[in-house]
Amino acid sequence: MIVLGVDPGLTRCGIGAVAMDAQRPRLVAVTVIRSDASLPIEQRLLHIHTELNRIIDEVRPDEMAVERVFSQHNVKTVMGTAQVAGLVMLAAAMRGIPVAMHTPTEVKAAVTGSGRADKEQVTTMVTRLLGLDERPSPADAADALALALCHGWQAPMRAKLAASR
Amino acid sequence: MIVLGVDPGLTRCGIGAVAMDAQRPRLVAVTVIRSDASLPIEQRLLHIHTELNRIIDEVRPDEMAVERVFSQHNVKTVMGTAQVAGLVMLAAAMRGIPVAMHTPTEVKAAVTGSGRADKEQVTTMVTRLLGLDERPSPADAADALALALCHGWQAPMRAKLAASR
Repeated sequence: MIVLGVDPGLTRCGIGAVAMDAQRPRLVAVTVIRSDASLPIEQRLLHIHTELNRIIDEVRPDEMAVERVFSQHNVKTVMGTAQVAGLVMLAAAMRGIPVAMHTPTEVKAAVTGSGRADKEQVTTMVTRLLGLDERPSPADAADALALALCHGWQAPMRAKLAASR
Repeated sequence: MIVLGVDPGLTRCGIGAVAMDAQRPRLVAVTVIRSDASLPIEQRLLHIHTELNRIIDEVRPDEMAVERVFSQHNVKTVMGTAQVAGLVMLAAAMRGIPVAMHTPTEVKAAVTGSGRADKEQVTTMVTRLLGLDERPSPADAADALALALCHGWQAPMRAKLAASR
């Protein structure tokens, strides 16, 4: 199973895909979609939408995961993040790919064991878990991979829950 | 010039289109896209995206306007509203239709003369300005028409500003 994780953002949108079938998770793709802050918002969203859909069609994930946006200090940032999260969910729904949201705490706890881990710790664990030669950078890319791992590990649990309904 | 106004929302998304060429603005279309709150968020976004794009292709607006979302008391509502606003801007950008955002205060002031007008007053003025036999309902539909009128009236000013650059 390939899981595509997305850490949504207008300026930097982290994308990380991992394959969960093997004994150990394997990196499939990692990138960051950037959009020019000097462009009008609708052009930025169109650029992110286009790139995101290109990546999804390339990676062909079985499931997708998006980081759940919470109220941050900066209202403008939250709005942009929510708009990008909306595009991600739309892209998944258009292809019938199951998509779930996970909180940052949930993701940090899944990969480091602590919901209060910092970005450095998350990156270190993602690098180790995927056996990477280099630390994924920027942090948004590492976050997207952490999200994909978190989602992938929860899959058997979700399957059990669904079967017991 | 036909202006399509959208009052974004997950549960009710108001859509109102007006033609601004004639001596008096004329109603082109008014509707509300609803999405079932019991559906997963991605299915709701897909439904809104599909309906919205169908309406845009029918109405063929020259310009679009979206109500600018502000921090509201309910964080969950804001997120949904921002996600739908993102879809509206994406739909406009995909077709090369200029899209602008207007604040609720700006819209109220444009149609009633007061930025603090209530929903009743906005509906009354929209009904009168467009010479409608019935008051548009629900309030989201009236808001979308008010937004379209606000945007349409500002068009000559925007054209002047653009020319003077």
